[in-house]
Amino acid sequence: MTPHPFDTAVSLTPLDAAVPGRFAGASSPDYWNMVGPFGGTTAATAMQAVMQHPDRLGEPIALTVNYAAALGPGAFTVLATPVRTNRSTQHWTVSLTQPDAAGADSVVMTATAVTAARRQTWGVNDTPMPAVTPPVAAEKMAFPGGGVEWIKRYEMRPLSGMIPRVWDGSGTDSLSQLWVRDNPPRPLDFSSLAALSDVFFPRVWLRRAKHVPVGTVSMTVHFHADSGQLAECGEGFLLGQARAQAFRHGFFDQTAQLWTESGTLLVTTNQIVYYKE
Amino acid sequence: MTPHPFDTAVSLTPLDAAVPGRFAGASSPDYWNMVGPFGGTTAATAMQAVMQHPDRLGEPIALTVNYAAALGPGAFTVLATPVRTNRSTQHWTVSLTQPDAAGADSVVMTATAVTAARRQTWGVNDTPMPAVTPPVAAEKMAFPGGGVEWIKRYEMRPLSGMIPRVWDGSGTDSLSQLWVRDNPPRPLDFSSLAALSDVFFPRVWLRRAKHVPVGTVSMTVHFHADSGQLAECGEGFLLGQARAQAFRHGFFDQTAQLWTESGTLLVTTNQIVYYKE
Repeated sequence: MTPHPFDTAVSLTPLDAAVPGRFAGASSPDYWNMVGPFGGTTAATAMQAVMQHPDRLGEPIALTVNYAAALGPGAFTVLATPVRTNRSTQHWTVSLTQPDAAGADSVVMTATAVTAARRQTWGVNDTPMPAVTPPVAAEKMAFPGGGVEWIKRYEMRPLSGMIPRVWDGSGTDSLSQLWVRDNPPRPLDFSSLAALSDVFFPRVWLRRAKHVPVGTVSMTVHFHADSGQLAECGEGFLLGQARAQAFRHGFFDQTAQLWTESGTLLVTTNQIVYYKE
Repeated sequence: MTPHPFDTAVSLTPLDAAVPGRFAGASSPDYWNMVGPFGGTTAATAMQAVMQHPDRLGEPIALTVNYAAALGPGAFTVLATPVRTNRSTQHWTVSLTQPDAAGADSVVMTATAVTAARRQTWGVNDTPMPAVTPPVAAEKMAFPGGGVEWIKRYEMRPLSGMIPRVWDGSGTDSLSQLWVRDNPPRPLDFSSLAALSDVFFPRVWLRRAKHVPVGTVSMTVHFHADSGQLAECGEGFLLGQARAQAFRHGFFDQTAQLWTESGTLLVTTNQIVYYKE
């Protein structure tokens, strides 16, 4: 059986028995974007390194990924370190390095993560899923020829705030809603959820209806679900909603949510993105 | 002239000429919370270490602070490292350590930050400040006797979503709005803005009207302003708005904004917080 392209993309091989968090990986051509792989798979790689660490305690609560430089094709090294382990929470630092032109190891991504043993407590979902067309009734987005690879790895069913068809500067707001899942479908896990958190096209393209160069600088994911809730979702669709709060001096933010089809809020996520005038 | 208590709280002394990002600091009794200093000053300490680093490029864009353990009284060490410097952005890792009971250095906080040279670009404030009572017309919050120290270091003028007076489980939502500034007033800078991002009382107290133990696990701050805009704000009030999106399995999130009195969105910030049933 051929592995799912996402599993290939985030596959990590332990490098050193003495340093259990040190892994070898490689950039995925299947998820290639313009000048490097999709940032979502890079975030997923950081998450995966934590998930695969033999000393991990509990499940992810928070992940922040900083994109320090464009990841190139080929091999890279990831190092996940549990810097503090408490009774029920564990704090991680992660770095991804790749040889630069001179062959020296160069930092391409830094991340921090928190994992925790979750407990049953009082709870409430204070951000109900918006009332939208169900996925079966929403039209699948066609992949235009010549598009980037990574977008073909997701089944997207846009509902509102689609990519402008005409770049005429006529944008009025930055809100997008879409149904999304892996393509082909794949059971949800924390790594794929980290990748899905970065699935929205740049808010500045929508807000301005202008196609300017962009790049995510830092993304934070707060996980509200445990592995049981991810298993319930399985290969189902997620409803994604994203909007920006401010565009200024070359950077905009994006605030987003991901719900299961049955309305469970799985993730709240925020990122800050560079844009060029 | 006595220095402002905030300046004393975030004061850092270089420890080692060979490692320009290594500083000595000390927990501030003036900002003491229940079992350690106010998390806002800890975040500000991480920011301050970056701001004081001689090799810093540009101004803060993003800061993520992970609270790994309760910071104790007394001395600590901060290390800020520029792990990647690009043409217009710079990526930082920060750690704060303190000797544990056995005298060994123990990680209390990790952080990452991004600084950048900002440019004039097209921009838009897509989250207008809500229409609220101006600070002069809003009542100053009284400090009940026996309260924690840090809260006295802020002038707060709550507008809505105040701390419940009765803990009767009658909460219905998690939205709070307040005017806030340093007490006594102090010109805004990036470090104080990082601290102000953590000024909201725990959302679970409001949502449940129940006083349960809490602790911020991770906070991310996205800065939308440059130092010129902070200087324009000066000692003025900020409007803070915070709410939660989900409470589940012992953790809730908080999504918040800070505007200047004239309506400039300075910060969007998110945190994930532990709560006990």
